Amino acid sequence: MSRMPRLPFPAFVGILVLLSFFAPRGECASGDYARFVNPLVGTRNMGHTYPGATVPFGMVQLSPDTGRPPMYDEHGNYMAEVYRYCSGYQYDDSTIFGFSHTHFSGTGHSDLGDVSLMPTCGPLQLEPGDPSRPGSGFHSRFRHATETAEPGYYKVTLDDHDIEVELTATTRVGMHRITFARDEEAHVILDMMADIYPYPGKNVWTFLRVENDSTVTGYRQTTGWARTRTVYFVLRFSRPFRSYGHERYDSTPYKGFYRQFDQDHDFPEMAGREIRAHFDFDPMPGRPLLVKVALSCVSTAGAMKNMEAELPHWDFDRVRREAREAWNRELGRVRVESLNDDLETVFYTALYHTMLAPIVYEDVDGHYRGLDQNVHTSERFTNYTIFSLWDTYRALHPLFNLIQVDRNTDMIQSMLAHDDQSVHHMLPVWSHYANENWCMIGYHAVSVIGDALVKGNRGVDLTRALTACVATSEVPYFDGVGEYVQLGYVPDEASPYSVSITLELAYDDWCIAQLARLAGDDGLRSRYLERAASYRQLFDASTGFMRPKQRDGSWRDAFDPLSTSGQGFIEGNAWNYSLYVPQDVMALVELLGGPGQLEKYLDQLFTMELADEHIAHTEDITRDGIIGTYVHGNEPGHHIAYLYNWTDRPWKTQERVRKIMATMYGSGVDGLCGNDDAGQMSAWYVFSSLGFYPVCPGSPRYEIGSPLVKDAAVHLENGKVLHIRVQNQGPDSVFVQRVEVAGQPLTRRYLTHDQLVAGGDIVFFMGSEPRDDW
Amino acid sequence: MSRMPRLPFPAFVGILVLLSFFAPRGECASGDYARFVNPLVGTRNMGHTYPGATVPFGMVQLSPDTGRPPMYDEHGNYMAEVYRYCSGYQYDDSTIFGFSHTHFSGTGHSDLGDVSLMPTCGPLQLEPGDPSRPGSGFHSRFRHATETAEPGYYKVTLDDHDIEVELTATTRVGMHRITFARDEEAHVILDMMADIYPYPGKNVWTFLRVENDSTVTGYRQTTGWARTRTVYFVLRFSRPFRSYGHERYDSTPYKGFYRQFDQDHDFPEMAGREIRAHFDFDPMPGRPLLVKVALSCVSTAGAMKNMEAELPHWDFDRVRREAREAWNRELGRVRVESLNDDLETVFYTALYHTMLAPIVYEDVDGHYRGLDQNVHTSERFTNYTIFSLWDTYRALHPLFNLIQVDRNTDMIQSMLAHDDQSVHHMLPVWSHYANENWCMIGYHAVSVIGDALVKGNRGVDLTRALTACVATSEVPYFDGVGEYVQLGYVPDEASPYSVSITLELAYDDWCIAQLARLAGDDGLRSRYLERAASYRQLFDASTGFMRPKQRDGSWRDAFDPLSTSGQGFIEGNAWNYSLYVPQDVMALVELLGGPGQLEKYLDQLFTMELADEHIAHTEDITRDGIIGTYVHGNEPGHHIAYLYNWTDRPWKTQERVRKIMATMYGSGVDGLCGNDDAGQMSAWYVFSSLGFYPVCPGSPRYEIGSPLVKDAAVHLENGKVLHIRVQNQGPDSVFVQRVEVAGQPLTRRYLTHDQLVAGGDIVFFMGSEPRDDW
Repeated sequence: MSRMPRLPFPAFVGILVLLSFFAPRGECASGDYARFVNPLVGTRNMGHTYPGATVPFGMVQLSPDTGRPPMYDEHGNYMAEVYRYCSGYQYDDSTIFGFSHTHFSGTGHSDLGDVSLMPTCGPLQLEPGDPSRPGSGFHSRFRHATETAEPGYYKVTLDDHDIEVELTATTRVGMHRITFARDEEAHVILDMMADIYPYPGKNVWTFLRVENDSTVTGYRQTTGWARTRTVYFVLRFSRPFRSYGHERYDSTPYKGFYRQFDQDHDFPEMAGREIRAHFDFDPMPGRPLLVKVALSCVSTAGAMKNMEAELPHWDFDRVRREAREAWNRELGRVRVESLNDDLETVFYTALYHTMLAPIVYEDVDGHYRGLDQNVHTSERFTNYTIFSLWDTYRALHPLFNLIQVDRNTDMIQSMLAHDDQSVHHMLPVWSHYANENWCMIGYHAVSVIGDALVKGNRGVDLTRALTACVATSEVPYFDGVGEYVQLGYVPDEASPYSVSITLELAYDDWCIAQLARLAGDDGLRSRYLERAASYRQLFDASTGFMRPKQRDGSWRDAFDPLSTSGQGFIEGNAWNYSLYVPQDVMALVELLGGPGQLEKYLDQLFTMELADEHIAHTEDITRDGIIGTYVHGNEPGHHIAYLYNWTDRPWKTQERVRKIMATMYGSGVDGLCGNDDAGQMSAWYVFSSLGFYPVCPGSPRYEIGSPLVKDAAVHLENGKVLHIRVQNQGPDSVFVQRVEVAGQPLTRRYLTHDQLVAGGDIVFFMGSEPRDDW
Repeated sequence: MSRMPRLPFPAFVGILVLLSFFAPRGECASGDYARFVNPLVGTRNMGHTYPGATVPFGMVQLSPDTGRPPMYDEHGNYMAEVYRYCSGYQYDDSTIFGFSHTHFSGTGHSDLGDVSLMPTCGPLQLEPGDPSRPGSGFHSRFRHATETAEPGYYKVTLDDHDIEVELTATTRVGMHRITFARDEEAHVILDMMADIYPYPGKNVWTFLRVENDSTVTGYRQTTGWARTRTVYFVLRFSRPFRSYGHERYDSTPYKGFYRQFDQDHDFPEMAGREIRAHFDFDPMPGRPLLVKVALSCVSTAGAMKNMEAELPHWDFDRVRREAREAWNRELGRVRVESLNDDLETVFYTALYHTMLAPIVYEDVDGHYRGLDQNVHTSERFTNYTIFSLWDTYRALHPLFNLIQVDRNTDMIQSMLAHDDQSVHHMLPVWSHYANENWCMIGYHAVSVIGDALVKGNRGVDLTRALTACVATSEVPYFDGVGEYVQLGYVPDEASPYSVSITLELAYDDWCIAQLARLAGDDGLRSRYLERAASYRQLFDASTGFMRPKQRDGSWRDAFDPLSTSGQGFIEGNAWNYSLYVPQDVMALVELLGGPGQLEKYLDQLFTMELADEHIAHTEDITRDGIIGTYVHGNEPGHHIAYLYNWTDRPWKTQERVRKIMATMYGSGVDGLCGNDDAGQMSAWYVFSSLGFYPVCPGSPRYEIGSPLVKDAAVHLENGKVLHIRVQNQGPDSVFVQRVEVAGQPLTRRYLTHDQLVAGGDIVFFMGSEPRDDW
């Protein structure tokens, strides 16, 4: 049972869900899987998802922005409030400031919010205003009752202006349908100062040109999480504006001969750090104004090409329909029958969230801006960006290895291109619009590559990939790697996250060893297997935990295995992180004292209470996302529930994962207990719902959990269909009694990749009593 | 006789000049015309030339920067001091701050100074320091005794560090040869904060990558005179640096995960607004360090291509030799024999200065950044930038029409490309590295185009050119054009320069009429001839001057025809500007009351004293550049001395131009009486030295003056040679007795373009007595 309050979600989706109640289950009769998706899931508090319009892996994410939090207070102190706005939208807000074209989904940090459009009417207001004072700026109040969010479509009414805004998108073009109700002058504000996660100096440069009476081109360059990021665009209105202008808000001591112009009115060149432009129209009550905004990675000329190729027409409904069809094609790769509609919504929304990142990052002609800021052309692949790899190597890319093999190949090619362009000769850590933002730890691209190649991906050149992985792992100034190689661990003095880094590098190095094995390079394999054993260096037998070690080999004092802060870990404490040896759980079990000790350890982890002091100052941990000391919102624990498979009580895995699915996910706006993290949280749910999970990407194993679906048909890219059939499924029927694969009983606690991609039937026989004898 | 003090100029040039004394005159026997060039001419005070290394029309201008003037004082007041540093170099300085790769020649405003390198030794200093306190920073004192400046080569010793720096260049690559004397750690500082004409916020973004142990790539984006300007480069050292680092001087509230790195030391990514990097080398006394810096308009990849294509080797002397050869090829287009070596230096230095702008602005593959900030490819032309057209339409482009026809064609193609890319659909006013800085008034590109086409240029498409010219002249918000068309003049209320603008637009419109005539479009021709008569609207018969008129048709009160400030004129007063009707001097003569009145007017102009109050607050006017009220440093007067040809005393033209040549030009560092203005002042000299001047570009006429050369052979691109032979030339023999063209006596006071390009002989017979009867 879900502890999520059942929140009202859009009427349209509601009706569809209602209709689906009468549809035959198992395979969605109409093929309209999109009707089960609620894009508002996760938009309250910590989910950091956005409700707007996008297509699968689309470069445009067109969505309302409800918050304008200052990053620093008047005393210059950092304000945590800004963290809430990673996706630009918070459900509890009642104010919209604009509809911008780029949004991260579920990240724990932000950026983007580019090219924000806000329609208003009546007297022009160029200041956003104070949301607590309606009418104080161009913002508008809105009510969720007017809101519709569907895959590829979003609608809301701006109450203060009586304007209905509808949004849809192609891969590279966002489309607005704006219907003004009042017989007043209409405006569209192009707010180039709008930032998600603003801070002083973030906007580096803005360049705008009014090309003709209905077309604007331009770009914005920002710094911040991405240091040198530029988004190019072309914007086209369906009817000519009557007048236009802009205000420049940065100080401009030097104007040169531009001073001869009235630059504020109808002057087609605008450039500066901080600019808001406005386009004014005669009243047009009831007659919609359409706006198309094409983005480009490269140039305004590229944006123009993108618009011409993807959206040459003005048929909003067609774009909306095609976006939904695109979603249905992708969602239809996994056709599930759930116990009820609510779970169907949770499942398909999770599946939806797994396809919002990475995003396509190239123009229709294959041009994209590379890490070196030069323009490159993708040869025989599609270039992607937004690799939040510390999150997504765990389950998202493994999910792609199952249902998005071609795209995952392109993503790996994109990583290799990134590596080619990297001045460090490194694969991406967090690839971010032609930037590396270095977010989090480890070099987990090697896991993504290792997982793909181990699982038989033929689209990636092994030699090139292995070379890139090895080079990536040998950059001494990165993240303590120099000392890690030298000492066998990252010393406490080198990083506040020394233990987390050591454990994750050890795992990554194991992945490199797998690639070396595939390449037949025994020497390399041995070297990396040795590095992969580095976790042993940090296991402190006296406390039974992984623990920060100093350069001289001594343990650091003042060790608190419960605290998440200042203990050598990142987004986790020693209790959770000590279990992070996915590459050799058997060895970990030995260190911990055997399967019985592991079971006790896990029992304690899932039951003991974490004091507030232990989670203070740590992002992405809320009471909602915690079971005992287990924190589902933090990725380092995502494999933990499955570790009971290495004890004598694998049923506890089954119990735990069902508990987590029931309590940490929901169909409402707070249906995510923590950041969705570019799809990782959702990918965990998709796997777990199907009954298995990749505890160790790079290995072909998927640990058996407890399926939540009643039935699933996974349509593989090899043309085969994997059927997961669950017998005796039910809310209390969480325990696996036995499993049959292709008619044969499964005698292990895991499935292999070969078993999955062979297609055919995997049958789970469920019961309400634990069974450990299969 | 020159009133210029004969200043010491470099020994090397001195010796060459000395040697040349014994060389046969007329044709330079060795073909080494470069030996007559003194790049230091104009480097003191107002000339605004730079002494560094460049090739003809080269994209790289590698030159020392001696000043770091603040633009604003502590009270925020503008400091005129900064104006002195338009070229980065002032002869009276004794401190060098670095050697940067881009410089304007002779402009009255500045920008550039990109990619500044400064070698130092001993302890690293990253602050430039105070020039009044030696050792307070990385700057160094220098003495002119150690300085050599030749076409394509510059040398100086940095006394504070005992470092000899030599510079040379190809079109797109600058090369440094740095010889350290001391057995100390050596550094090269890459100062990305160095700006000529700095002001708060000028540096928008800098991006640097250390690609390997000896290669750096990057770019800098600035705002200012050019609003959105980016210069890309690659820098390569001839030996690996031992270490490197950088300091970022702008505030960086947000570091993100970059905080894990020691970014200051050996970290290959650097980005920010204000950055200085340093590269450190082991001591290498006596063994030169070579540095190559290739620029690009487009990208660091483009810069790399430019380096590979133009300068793949490390042979400094070869580059220096080839640069000199390139200069000799261009200088050799006009082979003169002068009365003495000093005049030879003045002439060839002037000719040299006519080939420093416009500059090539495209990469070796033809890619360049356009006005729309997109990357374009030049199809069948070479793209140029730096069109200081208000200056250069007068004599520089007409000179190109004679001796650089192909390049002038490319320049016009560049202007037409600019027009294609212009959001205003306008030809350039002041084209500036993919920017329009709108400097000065008028749309004089139409004059350049008109002049070329009238003079038979076959490389420009007439229809396309005419269309662009007409569109350019019809942008109502530009420079009062809307009211100019409506009222027939720019009203005083519309611009502080209303009279200057009206007069110059009228002239420009006459040029468009000439194009319409060529195109056979009589209607268009009539329309533009009508506009070309607009000057009549502003002639105030009651005062006898052009005068600001108000919207209601009344003259503005408080009119002071002597003042250059606030009287409706720019860089000039009513006395000078009232003579600006080059397109119809006959009509002007009538307005003024006939030839006798014009003569009186001119006599008075050249003799009356201008009070200090009349020239205060006006740039580019100094006592040095004034004869009476005639200001040679200001372009609007450049035709004035030739106007005596419309009186009964043409010998006064001859007297005046000889006087101007003798007193306003010299062979020493203060050999220019005002800004060279991208070559316009020098082009005036080149024409006048040859004995004729294009008073009205767009007409095929060249007014006869008084040649200063003894003999000249102009090698035309049509393969013909125009010989100008001067009989009885001498310091006092300034009066033309008669002229013979192809053996026939000239019966008019002007030559035509056809006469010049036919080649053959033009013989001036000179005498010391005025003769007006030819």
